[in-house]
Amino acid sequence: MIVQKVPISSQKIFTVMSLVVVGTVAFDAIETPFGKTDKIIGGAATYSGTAASYFTKNIKLVSVVGDDFPGETIHQFHKNGISTEGLQVKKGQKTFFWSGKYHTDMNTRDTLDTQLNVLLDFDPVIPDSYQDCEFLMLSNLMPQLQKKVLERLNKRPKLVVMDTMNFWMETQWDTLMEMISLVDVLTVNDSEARQLTNEYSLVKAAQKILKMGPRYLIIKKGEHGALLFNNEQVFFAPALPLEDVFDPTGAGDTFAGGFIGHIAQTRDISFENMKRGIIYGSAMASFCVEKFGLERLINLTQEEIDERVQQFIDLVQFDIALV
Amino acid sequence: MIVQKVPISSQKIFTVMSLVVVGTVAFDAIETPFGKTDKIIGGAATYSGTAASYFTKNIKLVSVVGDDFPGETIHQFHKNGISTEGLQVKKGQKTFFWSGKYHTDMNTRDTLDTQLNVLLDFDPVIPDSYQDCEFLMLSNLMPQLQKKVLERLNKRPKLVVMDTMNFWMETQWDTLMEMISLVDVLTVNDSEARQLTNEYSLVKAAQKILKMGPRYLIIKKGEHGALLFNNEQVFFAPALPLEDVFDPTGAGDTFAGGFIGHIAQTRDISFENMKRGIIYGSAMASFCVEKFGLERLINLTQEEIDERVQQFIDLVQFDIALV
Repeated sequence: MIVQKVPISSQKIFTVMSLVVVGTVAFDAIETPFGKTDKIIGGAATYSGTAASYFTKNIKLVSVVGDDFPGETIHQFHKNGISTEGLQVKKGQKTFFWSGKYHTDMNTRDTLDTQLNVLLDFDPVIPDSYQDCEFLMLSNLMPQLQKKVLERLNKRPKLVVMDTMNFWMETQWDTLMEMISLVDVLTVNDSEARQLTNEYSLVKAAQKILKMGPRYLIIKKGEHGALLFNNEQVFFAPALPLEDVFDPTGAGDTFAGGFIGHIAQTRDISFENMKRGIIYGSAMASFCVEKFGLERLINLTQEEIDERVQQFIDLVQFDIALV
Repeated sequence: MIVQKVPISSQKIFTVMSLVVVGTVAFDAIETPFGKTDKIIGGAATYSGTAASYFTKNIKLVSVVGDDFPGETIHQFHKNGISTEGLQVKKGQKTFFWSGKYHTDMNTRDTLDTQLNVLLDFDPVIPDSYQDCEFLMLSNLMPQLQKKVLERLNKRPKLVVMDTMNFWMETQWDTLMEMISLVDVLTVNDSEARQLTNEYSLVKAAQKILKMGPRYLIIKKGEHGALLFNNEQVFFAPALPLEDVFDPTGAGDTFAGGFIGHIAQTRDISFENMKRGIIYGSAMASFCVEKFGLERLINLTQEEIDERVQQFIDLVQFDIALV
């Protein structure tokens, strides 16, 4: 009997590749017109990873917390299929803490307190088990830390998505520009896209940003939806009109998590599939804002998600047959 | 040979019913970050009627101008299939004049000058030939004048669409409320919807406004698109992302004109068809803002409109098959 060698390309199908999510795991204290919270669990990677876990199960977290961080949340990560081998727990140190207060319009907020704590000397560790990373979500973090993660992966992932914020444009321009040139998908909000390019028109801003390196750009417009650009196409997804936006914290990270979760689940990085990812991300974000923190996001059912996606379909679909 | 009487219901098919457009015909002087104009032709009814004329030809204008108004524009109305029998030309008087300056974001503007002139004692005349009115577009105007038009039509039109503005909420609340209770479709912008209801959430505002009388509500959000509500459904159309918004003047009226023009063309007032109307209105508005005043709007081809509508289809369509 002749034993046939399986070609490498076929073997790959049987390898479960992973989604690595890098970013903050934190405590937040939030005040909105609807109320305020004590310290609750937050952080960009928490939101992104949790949202992604509804789509794919092989998620690997890179972050840092202090030993004040609750074990039950780490247990919850495991239950959600999120490995925490790359989550450093620093003895005798405190978890990153952010506190903010939203204005009536929910689009603007004041930061009341930021205690970097363990983030101050965070040096991301990539465990060997993470080297199968196929999809990489670099949530908002110091650009030099995002860079270290990319450098410490032996093989460049199939798709690298990076989020960032205005603060790094003001303090770490050069490293940020280098990172932007290295990623596949950049996500920024509308004011950040304008700040990055000195263009008011988002179309012009997108053209400039795509020249900086990324093949895809997502501009998040909060309650006004999100735009996906590449050099030839543009796609728009609205935010779901909601009776109340209770707490916008983490909505952008949840959006990114739903997006990359869908991409990792389908392993399809075409523009058409990214459009679906944008819709799934928008659906997840619409849940996120309905309650404080992660409250609404941690106990969703597939039926609820499908129903929400159907609402997006109903919201935008129309039937015009051009001759 | 027996001559059969044609039943009245069948006769109606052969009657060409009309779209009556009521509102201002004006001079504007506009300043934007891209430049400024001398006195150019403007006015809500001018924009609405011109936009509608790409969809239906039996349009009838109710308005007033002074004898300083150019005959060539009136000739242009006729060429566009817009009857001006209800356009009063006041000897020795001046046309309504508005002047405004837009800020960089193009979403806010300062009114530099308003000269009501002929509008001061405008008493709308409905010629007999207008009594076949099937669709009525009441563009933004003093509510008591909108009311007079409705009273002077012998038969209530099949669909009455009304636009209004914050100023009438502050000065003519009671008459405005009465008018809102009488129309089928109300169009307002997002801040007006909030002012009308004291609700920040547009979903809650829409629920309240629909209780005031109209069966349909359109909330215009400028560069952020438009929402269509009835008591059961909601539809959203984005604005087309443009490289430059050159001059937003008249965009809302152009949107309304494209909407009612499509409805009048198809004579179908279902929610599904109103969705198409919103897309056609959005397409027409996207042309309007590309140049000053009516410049871009007066010489469009059917191909250009179809191409623009296709851009809207491409912008929002995605393919998710839920099991």
